[in-house]
Amino acid sequence: MAEKVIGIDIGGTNLRGGLVDSQGNIIKRMKILSEADKGIDKLIDNLVGFIKDISQGEKVYDIGIGIPGIIDSKDGIITEAPNILNVSDYPIRSVLDEKLGGDINVVIENDANSAALGEWWIGVSKNVNSMLMITMGTGIGGGIVLDDKLWTGVSGMAGEIGHMTIYPDGAKCNCGNYGCLESYASATAIRRMVHEGLENQSFVTSLRESVKDAHMEDIPLIVMEAASAGDEFSLSVWHQVGVALGIGIASLINLLNVEMVVIGGGVSNAWDLFIDTTYSEAKKRAFHAPIERASIERGSLKDDAGILGASYLAFQIRSQK
Amino acid sequence: MAEKVIGIDIGGTNLRGGLVDSQGNIIKRMKILSEADKGIDKLIDNLVGFIKDISQGEKVYDIGIGIPGIIDSKDGIITEAPNILNVSDYPIRSVLDEKLGGDINVVIENDANSAALGEWWIGVSKNVNSMLMITMGTGIGGGIVLDDKLWTGVSGMAGEIGHMTIYPDGAKCNCGNYGCLESYASATAIRRMVHEGLENQSFVTSLRESVKDAHMEDIPLIVMEAASAGDEFSLSVWHQVGVALGIGIASLINLLNVEMVVIGGGVSNAWDLFIDTTYSEAKKRAFHAPIERASIERGSLKDDAGILGASYLAFQIRSQK
Repeated sequence: MAEKVIGIDIGGTNLRGGLVDSQGNIIKRMKILSEADKGIDKLIDNLVGFIKDISQGEKVYDIGIGIPGIIDSKDGIITEAPNILNVSDYPIRSVLDEKLGGDINVVIENDANSAALGEWWIGVSKNVNSMLMITMGTGIGGGIVLDDKLWTGVSGMAGEIGHMTIYPDGAKCNCGNYGCLESYASATAIRRMVHEGLENQSFVTSLRESVKDAHMEDIPLIVMEAASAGDEFSLSVWHQVGVALGIGIASLINLLNVEMVVIGGGVSNAWDLFIDTTYSEAKKRAFHAPIERASIERGSLKDDAGILGASYLAFQIRSQK
Repeated sequence: MAEKVIGIDIGGTNLRGGLVDSQGNIIKRMKILSEADKGIDKLIDNLVGFIKDISQGEKVYDIGIGIPGIIDSKDGIITEAPNILNVSDYPIRSVLDEKLGGDINVVIENDANSAALGEWWIGVSKNVNSMLMITMGTGIGGGIVLDDKLWTGVSGMAGEIGHMTIYPDGAKCNCGNYGCLESYASATAIRRMVHEGLENQSFVTSLRESVKDAHMEDIPLIVMEAASAGDEFSLSVWHQVGVALGIGIASLINLLNVEMVVIGGGVSNAWDLFIDTTYSEAKKRAFHAPIERASIERGSLKDDAGILGASYLAFQIRSQK
């Protein structure tokens, strides 16, 4: 039996993955464009090509894939995925089985759940039995590990930490609700706060010039650099991010009393600009004993968390055969 | 081996319990004053007397006890219990072992966790694998059952649904936080809303007379009756309760994707006055699929939920021997 699996993390832009051994080492890695915006058929073509390329010369039977969206892991179906054009209730596992041949096992999971499993298996939470993962990216993803098992809910949709209501009358979220954590602590939220701030007020901020012609996706980095250089308005944006995250973490700790909360994703690169606010807000609001028992940590696997979590799942299906 | 256990629910006022068979039938029941306000020694005396009285003529080896407070179930310790005078880190299990003799097994659990287990074992959730229990009383208690197991957290403190933040700048909660669910949907919250309403405004409401000389504990019932009779202000109080509960349930459903949310406790007797608001608020805010998958139900065991959950735990320790 082969000792390696393939772990893949599908993103809106990139398709990243690796050949991974049972110790969690990424032996070989690859990155191509996912072209998810061109629809599911194009994505599947890219995925099949990726798997063939990366496994060249090796016999790899087990493949784990993290996918951004609502995933029915048991039946291998993408229920809903806003970042993949025109996809709903798509039986990705059986499609891949057919295209790759019958001796291949494919397991799929939500991308944030995969990241949670990655950090729990081989990252900052590797000695921890219960943890929450919060991924701060374009949106906010979440994953819940309790008693060394991913809690995915009765229909695979658990872990939507980004869609806890923080401010009931707050900003509208992409999900339709108001005041979600995602509306206050994601890249999308930062862009909104910057635009609202600049429109409604006339104070001096270096952002007024630097944001003007910037690409949407670059705004969090620009606000991070401006805050680091002392720009007051940019600092206030990160303060708002920190407070919202602290309110959410306090509720989560009171509710689930986990050992660790891990924060990852691109926006968390601004760690030093929000984490003190997050800590103090969470400590102010949560019960003393459970918040003291929990540590709030930065993910240690960075962009590899999803690949490694998907690989863990691939090793799991193998061991169940 | 005996086929019955004793299940006990300790309250701030009463100590209630029963002799329970393995089908969840309460063969014999008793209720005495707990006198928890006179301190732990008095409570222990009452508890020992209660156990001896109820087991008279029967040999009962296994006893489950639900206790309002933070409970370390594994080590049998009451960590903290605001309703029992002067108690902290109290080793209740070993004290009872000593007083009752060595062949007795005692298991303790938080009272809302016991109620959750009761409804899951033999109540409205008996065919359900994952559920949340919300008990609306003086405060708001909570219990979480996932995959047929109570999730109590890394240090036994999980399930504090009443202390999720609903309104970050809201009313101060007894726990020190602001805007907890408990500050908007408990008996304590209803009293606060009534008093604030009557103080700050001069509108006409039947409550102005009926609440004046009422005992604190009777206020929720008075507001329930006034609302049922059409009093506008009283209706608005229940509307606020319903909204807060709906916001909390939406976050819980997005987070945990459970099959059922069960609502119990004395304040839930006003069910018809708040549940429609709760449903519609939760549906407005949660993701479509998981909220449609979850049912929101009224507890079917009423005051017996805690006794039966504690009994279930007693049967569990027996089967582990």
